Amino acid sequence: MTIPTPAPSDKFSFGLWTVAYGGRDPFGEATRADMDPIYALENLARIGAYGVNFHDDDLIPFGSDDAKRDGIIARWKKGLDDTGLVVTTATTNLFTHPVFKDGGFTSNDRDVRRFAIRKVMRNIDLAAELGAKVYVCWGGREGAESGAAKDVAAALDRYREAFNVLGEFVHDKGYDMKFAIEPKPNEPRGDILLPTIGHALAFINTLDRSEMVGVNPEIGHEEMAGLNAAHGYAQALWQGKLFHIDLNGQSGPRYDQDFRFGAGNVRGAFWVVDTILAGGYDGPVHFDFKTPRTEDDKGVWASAAGCMTNYLVLRDKVQAFRADPEVQAALEAAKLPELAVPTLDDGEGWAELEKAELRDPDELAARGAAFEHLDQLALEHLYGVR
Amino acid sequence: MTIPTPAPSDKFSFGLWTVAYGGRDPFGEATRADMDPIYALENLARIGAYGVNFHDDDLIPFGSDDAKRDGIIARWKKGLDDTGLVVTTATTNLFTHPVFKDGGFTSNDRDVRRFAIRKVMRNIDLAAELGAKVYVCWGGREGAESGAAKDVAAALDRYREAFNVLGEFVHDKGYDMKFAIEPKPNEPRGDILLPTIGHALAFINTLDRSEMVGVNPEIGHEEMAGLNAAHGYAQALWQGKLFHIDLNGQSGPRYDQDFRFGAGNVRGAFWVVDTILAGGYDGPVHFDFKTPRTEDDKGVWASAAGCMTNYLVLRDKVQAFRADPEVQAALEAAKLPELAVPTLDDGEGWAELEKAELRDPDELAARGAAFEHLDQLALEHLYGVR
Amino acid sequence: MTIPTPAPSDKFSFGLWTVAYGGRDPFGEATRADMDPIYALENLARIGAYGVNFHDDDLIPFGSDDAKRDGIIARWKKGLDDTGLVVTTATTNLFTHPVFKDGGFTSNDRDVRRFAIRKVMRNIDLAAELGAKVYVCWGGREGAESGAAKDVAAALDRYREAFNVLGEFVHDKGYDMKFAIEPKPNEPRGDILLPTIGHALAFINTLDRSEMVGVNPEIGHEEMAGLNAAHGYAQALWQGKLFHIDLNGQSGPRYDQDFRFGAGNVRGAFWVVDTILAGGYDGPVHFDFKTPRTEDDKGVWASAAGCMTNYLVLRDKVQAFRADPEVQAALEAAKLPELAVPTLDDGEGWAELEKAELRDPDELAARGAAFEHLDQLALEHLYGVR
Amino acid sequence: MTIPTPAPSDKFSFGLWTVAYGGRDPFGEATRADMDPIYALENLARIGAYGVNFHDDDLIPFGSDDAKRDGIIARWKKGLDDTGLVVTTATTNLFTHPVFKDGGFTSNDRDVRRFAIRKVMRNIDLAAELGAKVYVCWGGREGAESGAAKDVAAALDRYREAFNVLGEFVHDKGYDMKFAIEPKPNEPRGDILLPTIGHALAFINTLDRSEMVGVNPEIGHEEMAGLNAAHGYAQALWQGKLFHIDLNGQSGPRYDQDFRFGAGNVRGAFWVVDTILAGGYDGPVHFDFKTPRTEDDKGVWASAAGCMTNYLVLRDKVQAFRADPEVQAALEAAKLPELAVPTLDDGEGWAELEKAELRDPDELAARGAAFEHLDQLALEHLYGVR
Repeated sequence: MTIPTPAPSDKFSFGLWTVAYGGRDPFGEATRADMDPIYALENLARIGAYGVNFHDDDLIPFGSDDAKRDGIIARWKKGLDDTGLVVTTATTNLFTHPVFKDGGFTSNDRDVRRFAIRKVMRNIDLAAELGAKVYVCWGGREGAESGAAKDVAAALDRYREAFNVLGEFVHDKGYDMKFAIEPKPNEPRGDILLPTIGHALAFINTLDRSEMVGVNPEIGHEEMAGLNAAHGYAQALWQGKLFHIDLNGQSGPRYDQDFRFGAGNVRGAFWVVDTILAGGYDGPVHFDFKTPRTEDDKGVWASAAGCMTNYLVLRDKVQAFRADPEVQAALEAAKLPELAVPTLDDGEGWAELEKAELRDPDELAARGAAFEHLDQLALEHLYGVR
Repeated sequence: MTIPTPAPSDKFSFGLWTVAYGGRDPFGEATRADMDPIYALENLARIGAYGVNFHDDDLIPFGSDDAKRDGIIARWKKGLDDTGLVVTTATTNLFTHPVFKDGGFTSNDRDVRRFAIRKVMRNIDLAAELGAKVYVCWGGREGAESGAAKDVAAALDRYREAFNVLGEFVHDKGYDMKFAIEPKPNEPRGDILLPTIGHALAFINTLDRSEMVGVNPEIGHEEMAGLNAAHGYAQALWQGKLFHIDLNGQSGPRYDQDFRFGAGNVRGAFWVVDTILAGGYDGPVHFDFKTPRTEDDKGVWASAAGCMTNYLVLRDKVQAFRADPEVQAALEAAKLPELAVPTLDDGEGWAELEKAELRDPDELAARGAAFEHLDQLALEHLYGVR
Repeated sequence: MTIPTPAPSDKFSFGLWTVAYGGRDPFGEATRADMDPIYALENLARIGAYGVNFHDDDLIPFGSDDAKRDGIIARWKKGLDDTGLVVTTATTNLFTHPVFKDGGFTSNDRDVRRFAIRKVMRNIDLAAELGAKVYVCWGGREGAESGAAKDVAAALDRYREAFNVLGEFVHDKGYDMKFAIEPKPNEPRGDILLPTIGHALAFINTLDRSEMVGVNPEIGHEEMAGLNAAHGYAQALWQGKLFHIDLNGQSGPRYDQDFRFGAGNVRGAFWVVDTILAGGYDGPVHFDFKTPRTEDDKGVWASAAGCMTNYLVLRDKVQAFRADPEVQAALEAAKLPELAVPTLDDGEGWAELEKAELRDPDELAARGAAFEHLDQLALEHLYGVR
Repeated sequence: MTIPTPAPSDKFSFGLWTVAYGGRDPFGEATRADMDPIYALENLARIGAYGVNFHDDDLIPFGSDDAKRDGIIARWKKGLDDTGLVVTTATTNLFTHPVFKDGGFTSNDRDVRRFAIRKVMRNIDLAAELGAKVYVCWGGREGAESGAAKDVAAALDRYREAFNVLGEFVHDKGYDMKFAIEPKPNEPRGDILLPTIGHALAFINTLDRSEMVGVNPEIGHEEMAGLNAAHGYAQALWQGKLFHIDLNGQSGPRYDQDFRFGAGNVRGAFWVVDTILAGGYDGPVHFDFKTPRTEDDKGVWASAAGCMTNYLVLRDKVQAFRADPEVQAALEAAKLPELAVPTLDDGEGWAELEKAELRDPDELAARGAAFEHLDQLALEHLYGVR
């Protein structure tokens, strides 16, 4: 197997904030200089990316006046034209400025909430103008460090209100755009509302225009809660709500590491790729990683390119795994096809089941599930020895 | 403050399996003898409990014939009568017998799934007969240790099918009973389906009779995923789905510890009690704990009594906290009442908000949120020094 | 019980960086203005602190010339005199400047390592001049994000070399000063060397002047690894190596939260206080916390004062617990005094034990350990109901 | 690359308890029948193992009389002869019988402690007779669920006393045997003493015959504390204390999973193998895994064989990685060779360093560390695409 090369047809996208991350962390200053967005576009195009996305403030400094803003946007559009990169999604920064210290949509301060919704509306207009089809919402500051500081029920009311207003806004404007909520359990808040894929999916069901809202799960965020990311992606797909994905790497419950994709939980990454291929996800393959601050600019692009390489390698492996006749036999032995068969017969209800003749449980218990052999085949594909 | 005494009006309930737990763990044999269910009832009544609940197999050994079963049930009913204890919920053991090694409702083996649903139906009949209003479903074996072993989408289809059948069953039988799904992230399976409150709430929305199904969150299970249990309970209440509660103690992400309530995350326990009181939960206050195997029978009842004592202590503290004028002033200063006010004015929509005059963000950012003072008041109530 | 008031005799100390923390985090800008060190001293004195400590760069901006440095030091000394605060410890910032991106003592870049050691020596001179008796060393950047990036054996050689040089330096200079290594498992590096109290203690044994080096464990850092902080403190005391303490709050494995002491793992905090009192620790009671960025300046001092209040409250409780006759009876019942008795009789060796008459294990197994009753008494003291 | 085949020269060993594990877990009964030790030996030999080890009670049921014991030992010796398997280590079960519910060496009950030491002595005699060179000590029950239940200082005194007695015993008997302490953070106790490699190494330094005592770290146990297992192994090697290894798989902080080696943290496994090869570990390559209870007997041997396959695959990859000229260039670029060079020049002390001309920190900071490229090369070796 050779190392594959990414192409725009692979639909790889990167956040502007990912490659432009200068390395500032809670204990240290930036180690890399500010990156010009056009330089970012040029290099993303060079390494084979297809798309790009951004927070409003990534592109247009917070508080810019209209003239400055217009100039930046014009230059950005030219950069997109020059490089052929597509804006796949956009999002709002509701976390960096001190005004959002207690959140945006759910800040206890009503003035802040009003400011937050309007900041989002303004950037949705830009996103629509640039052709973004998905608007990502990471509510990283919606949460609390202490119990009384946030009335969760009231906060969820406000959260819902915000999405209802924004749904109305996008609908009324006629934009072809969906929302994707990005869950995270904690950091930068002690505990964040909608901490996992599940909580976000459950919340979405309560919205006025719930059909417009899905999730944008990040592997690392789910793994920070010790959850199986592939299982979460699978449930989101099963509920028709996987509107976008954030791929990266993490080493379990600890600070948000944002390693390049493929360089965290390797085995988990294999199953995430398997899950999104099996579930028919066909949106952009987005990476939300941060290059470690040990690296210089050359390292940034090595890291970004690594995300794509690793995805392609894993995609090849997953496809080879699923195509392998030995694997197919092992899946059969492990009764995977049988799981797809309804438990009740066609036309059977509880009353029939109550009277049906069932197998003896001890006899059933004696059957080995044959999962270890199956998983060893998967590992051997992952290791590239099969 | 004196140490309060539990009374039946406090509606405390215990699982039969909790007090009867003999101390067997993955590395050790039981340290306490088997406990006669009637002995359990007598002692629960003695220490001030109101209710009891059970897995089918807790009461009636797996595979008992009808005569034995009938005898056990008659004796159990008499025990209930004698002690005045109420059966608050019941549940099915779909995890101990080897037949369930790959799950019950989502086992790859269709024969097992059929057996599982029927086992549940049979115990629902008994639960209804005994007056249980809630039927708890912990799908502890619904999961996998490896990626290919479980097709999550197919498994969720089967999971939904099972609840649809059971919903139909309860409806057709005319039972006054609801279901409560108990989430857990892992253990005994490597990863369990519906791992958190959020995932369960999201799943419930897809059911035919979703109004009959809510959640039974256990503090320890949420904390095993590093989640804020009170926040989860709050979201479940907000979605009208907190049908039952499992209170106990845990020390963060590690094995399922099932400490007595109050003896794990003390600060978290305070906020769980605050949340369920604020949210108007009025069901039984159920403890799902295990007495450590270091203890003898006397220790079992000390541990069980401790659960209730700690709940009463915390309930008193929470009520004192909410009634304290200094706290009310601090809540006001922290703008909690303002969070209850809609973000948009009455009649205001996005178009009006887009044109509204907003406050300057730097000015808003300068306002301190005053959460530390508020939380310190809470801690001082918790510590009993205020 | 009334809320106690701190006094200098309680020997409470704070890092300059703790109260001066402006609120910058990985996702947000500072929410509070820079704090003048003299303002910090004045307020620390006002709220009842005894001591203060600092990183070199907290006081003297990195790269200051000698004149500026001297001016700052003179002003600082005057501030100390004016407030009566004592410099209890000092430490070196080997993590903020980009030069330390791969560590200080263990950077792969030898020029960085040389710079790091000299930066430490220079600040030790200042620390000695200011009377600090302990020099804290947190090697937060000594680590790696990936496997090949750090040869751990070579890095430990360099780590040891650095402490050997510094030990020689302090010895030759005749300073009355010891070193205290502060372990941390991760953040800001993916994995940090000497991740726990245990690893640091083991490392210290290999040093030329190991008697001069102990540990400065931080509660939150141990709890980030899911460890029992009190147990770690106890082992450090048992090995004679608890040279300093960092008290704060954390909610288990996640990002480094640095909550005020008492506002994290409440039950754990009780046992940490019990452990340091029992072990005879008599150094400063130091808080390494960060006020959440939601707060303004008033909140900073509320948070700092809360650390001290909570310590005093817990100290009172621990003392009351240990003095309670019912507790003493429970300790006896739980055989704590028996644990202090050597297992072998005086003069007994293995050969005698091999022939001794032993009790029947089944008989021994039947004895209940009576820990639940004991722990419930502790909880009731913690809750302030006893 | 083809799938390699294990041979006795690879020195793979298995615990009798690993392959004989019947599948009992906290929530379920065994799913596999008891396994005859001879059957285990035969199959281990068949799949290519070299060695075997055992707890006393694995082989000889607790409480067997001498005649039964002698018969079992004779049969076991014959089994070893017949299969050619070597007994590499032995260990004592101080956790299954209820007598050990509060520990063995550190039980509060002195009678239990005496019983525990004698149980170990008896099995050491057998271990010596069978040729075991390492005696493993996992103190899984040495710990507590609550704070007052264990006086940690006293417990460590007793722990030390036990090892001192046993060291004397082995010395006096003239056995060619060392001890290896196996750390674990929790489970089955709430918190276990000596929770990590570091704590065990630090403790060992306090023993009378510390040269006879090292560690036997288990990958999963370190990862349960969120620690980097390879870093821990490296420190143990660096301190000359890696006396034995327990390889298996785990998915971060949660219950003890004991997956087959290679099927947990895949990236971590690669670096563990790299570390032990680099550090010159030449003892048996031991697997401490448990086959999931979903499997039948065939699955047990698939799982056991998988451990060895995965080790061989990773060993090949690690060797290829280290031999790859591109990797060597990347290591050079990342200054790994420079980390092996002492920080001070030959003959240089602190006084010389204080006057040496140093590089400008900003200049040093501008150098990229080139770790991402290096790590991507490692990943590509791991994935088998290079």
